[in-house]
Amino acid sequence: MAPAISPLALPLPALPPLAGVRLGAAAAGIRYQGRSDVVMAELAPGTTVAGVFTRNRCPGAPVDWCRAILPAGRARALVVNAGNANVFTGRAGVEAVRATAAAAAAAVGCPPRQVFLASTGVIGEVMAHHRLTEALPALHAGLADGAWEAAARGIMTTDTFPKAATRTAMIGGTQVRITGIAKGSGMIAPDMATMLCFVFTDAKIPAAALQAALGRGVDASFNRTTVDSDTSTSDTVLLFATGQTKHQRVPAEGGALLRDFRAKLHEVLLDLALAVVRDGEGAQKLVRIDVSGAVSARSARRIAMAIGNSPLVKTAIAGADANWGRIVMAVGKAGEPADRDRLAIAVGGVWMARDGGVVPDYDEAPVVAHMKGREIAIAVDLGLGDGRATAWTCDLTHGYIDINAAYRS
Amino acid sequence: MAPAISPLALPLPALPPLAGVRLGAAAAGIRYQGRSDVVMAELAPGTTVAGVFTRNRCPGAPVDWCRAILPAGRARALVVNAGNANVFTGRAGVEAVRATAAAAAAAVGCPPRQVFLASTGVIGEVMAHHRLTEALPALHAGLADGAWEAAARGIMTTDTFPKAATRTAMIGGTQVRITGIAKGSGMIAPDMATMLCFVFTDAKIPAAALQAALGRGVDASFNRTTVDSDTSTSDTVLLFATGQTKHQRVPAEGGALLRDFRAKLHEVLLDLALAVVRDGEGAQKLVRIDVSGAVSARSARRIAMAIGNSPLVKTAIAGADANWGRIVMAVGKAGEPADRDRLAIAVGGVWMARDGGVVPDYDEAPVVAHMKGREIAIAVDLGLGDGRATAWTCDLTHGYIDINAAYRS
Repeated sequence: MAPAISPLALPLPALPPLAGVRLGAAAAGIRYQGRSDVVMAELAPGTTVAGVFTRNRCPGAPVDWCRAILPAGRARALVVNAGNANVFTGRAGVEAVRATAAAAAAAVGCPPRQVFLASTGVIGEVMAHHRLTEALPALHAGLADGAWEAAARGIMTTDTFPKAATRTAMIGGTQVRITGIAKGSGMIAPDMATMLCFVFTDAKIPAAALQAALGRGVDASFNRTTVDSDTSTSDTVLLFATGQTKHQRVPAEGGALLRDFRAKLHEVLLDLALAVVRDGEGAQKLVRIDVSGAVSARSARRIAMAIGNSPLVKTAIAGADANWGRIVMAVGKAGEPADRDRLAIAVGGVWMARDGGVVPDYDEAPVVAHMKGREIAIAVDLGLGDGRATAWTCDLTHGYIDINAAYRS
Repeated sequence: MAPAISPLALPLPALPPLAGVRLGAAAAGIRYQGRSDVVMAELAPGTTVAGVFTRNRCPGAPVDWCRAILPAGRARALVVNAGNANVFTGRAGVEAVRATAAAAAAAVGCPPRQVFLASTGVIGEVMAHHRLTEALPALHAGLADGAWEAAARGIMTTDTFPKAATRTAMIGGTQVRITGIAKGSGMIAPDMATMLCFVFTDAKIPAAALQAALGRGVDASFNRTTVDSDTSTSDTVLLFATGQTKHQRVPAEGGALLRDFRAKLHEVLLDLALAVVRDGEGAQKLVRIDVSGAVSARSARRIAMAIGNSPLVKTAIAGADANWGRIVMAVGKAGEPADRDRLAIAVGGVWMARDGGVVPDYDEAPVVAHMKGREIAIAVDLGLGDGRATAWTCDLTHGYIDINAAYRS
C-alpha cells in the first residue's frame, strides 16, 4: 500500500535539459518490484565535482568510495540505487561498490574513479549488486536529455513525492543553469539511510571553487533542517559542473564572479532541503524557526536547532498548541547563553512572551488560528546580541510512529 | 479521565518512618481539583542538605531559590507543589517563592532560608500562591511520621504511579536508612517541568560530604536516563540528612566511612530514576543499553545516550523490531570514536552483528522473542578500549504523541 502523499508536497517545477547531463532510470529489482530503482547520469568530459557527506562515523561503502575519489575533482558518471543502502555490509559492500563503478565506467568509457555512487535503503543487508551491474548497459543506452522526473522518482524510498529545484544564475554576463534532485523523508526513512541530493550545472567551475560554494550552500540549507535528529549513514550531496556553457573564466578560488551562482545554488539547495522536510515522516506542518539577539550566529543556530529537535515542541505543533513554555525549555537546554528575563517568543508574528513572562493582555486567538495552518513560524529573540539564524523542521505526529515502529518486512 | 497506569509500574515498597522527618500532603486547589497538590516535610534541627539542579538555562524561580540557599547546607523544611511549575513567571514567580518560604518558616520556626522549595506543572502561568500559603498551617499541624505514600502521590503530575525507594546502609557499624520519593513521567509531562526527587536519611553527614555523594549518585543514575531528550526547567534532586542516628563521626570530606552509604544511595537514586523511565510518557518497554569497548567511560556514556535518545531506535523498539541498523546509525552519530568494522551489537544477549556485518548464520528467533517482552537489553561493543557505560530509556510510542500533542486545556 502506497502511503498518502504528504499534505506539504509541492509539484515538480518545469525542468529543462541541462547541457552535458544525460539521465535515465531502470528497474533492477534490487528490493522493490514494479518501479525503477537505479538511476544513472552521464556527464560530459571535463565535468568537475564537489561533494559533502554524512558526518556519521559509520558511513556506507558508497560514501567511503566517493570520499576517496573526490579529491581528483573529476566526474563522468553518477549511479544511484534505492532499496539497499550498502551500509554495514563489510567486504561485500566494498566489492559491490567496485563492481558498480567498473560496470558504469565500461559503459561510459572512463576510469572507474570518475564514477560517483550512492545507495539508499535498508542497512546491513548484502546487496545483490549483480542485478545492478546487469541493468547498467541497457540503462546507459537509453539515457536522455532532461529525464529529470524519472531520475527524481528512481531514487525515492519512502518519499511520498519526487523533489527537484532549478534556477538560472549569471556568471560574468552569461546565464547558466543549476538543477538538482533530492530524496529523503526525514533524516531517515524506515531502515533507510537516507538523504541524497544531486545538483548539476552547465557552468564551467574549477573543482576547488565548486567545493567551496557547495560547502557554504549545504551549511545554510540542509544543515539547518531536521526531522528527527537522527543523522544517517549515507547522506550525500554532490554538485557536478559540466562546463558546457561558455562564460568568463572562473578562477580556482571562485571569488566575486560566482556571487550570483552561489546565491542561486543556495536557493536550489534550500528548495530541496525544505522539500525533504515537507516529506518528513508523518509531517503535517512545516516549521520555520528564526532566532535573533543571540551572542553569535553560531549560538543562534544551536538554539534554533535545539527548538527544531525538541520532541515536546514538535508534538505541541502537531497538536496546534502554541506552547511557548516548551520553547523556553528548548532555548534553555541548548546550552548557549540565554537570559530567561530577556527572552521574547513569537508565534505567527505575535509576540506572546517578553522579558521573562507572558505579554500583558496577550490575545491567543490569532496565534491559535496560525497554529491550525500548514506553515508555522516561530521567532525567538534572546535580547543579548546580534546573532541570528534560521532552521526548519516538521511536526512530530502519529505518522512518524506508524512508519518507524513497523517491522522491516 | 485518568490515564492507564504504566504497564511497567512497580508497587511501592514498604516505607518505615525515618527519624527526623515528618511528612504530609494537602489539597490547595492550585490547579488540580479532588487530589492533594502540596507536600510538606519538616526536618529535625541540624539537618544537612545537598542538591543537584537542572542545567537548563531558563530555570524556574524555585530552582533559583534553592541554588541560592544551598551553600549554607542547612534545611528545616521542604515544600513542593504540583500543577504549576512557577517557571517563566518573572517578578510574580520570585514573590511566590518568598511568600511560600516565609509561610513555611513561620510554621516551623526557622529562617526562610532553611526552607527548600520545588514546583512542577505548567510553565508560564502565574501561580496563585496564596492558596499554597493559606494551606500550609493546617498541613503543618497534621504532619506525621512515615506518610511517604501521601507525599509521593502529592507531587505527581501526569505520573501514573507514585515512586519511592528505600535502603539501609552501614556507617562504621551503625545502620542508617535512606528513603527517597520522586515524580516524573519522562523528562517532561505535558507542559510540566518535571523531574523532582527528594531523598532523606537519618545519618549525620556534613553538607560537603553529602553534596559529593549526591553528585556522584545522580551522575550515575538520573543522568544516565532519558525519555525524550528534553531537559526540563525544574529538575531538582535534594538529599536531606537529619542526623538522628548516632554513628561514628563522618568527616567533611566523607571518605571511606561513607562507602556503603554511597553505594546504597546510588541504589535508591537508580531505583527512582528507573521508576521515572518506567513511567515515561507512553512507555511500553524499559530499555537498558550497555556500551563497552569505547575509548573512555565518557565516550561510552555519550554513545549509550545517543542510542537512548534516537527516535528511530526507540520507535523500532516500540515495534518490537531488533533493528540493529538503527543502532549502528546512532553509534555513528554520537560523534565519538567508532570503527564500523570493529563494531558488535547484541540484543537480548544475542550478538547479531560483529566486525562490521551481520553474524554468519544469525538466528533472529530468540531476538524476536526478547523484543516482545517488557524489558529490552541492548549491548554494543566498540572494540577500541576499556570504556564502559550503561544508560536507560523507554520506547517511543503513540502514547507519547497522544499525551504531548494534546492542547493544554
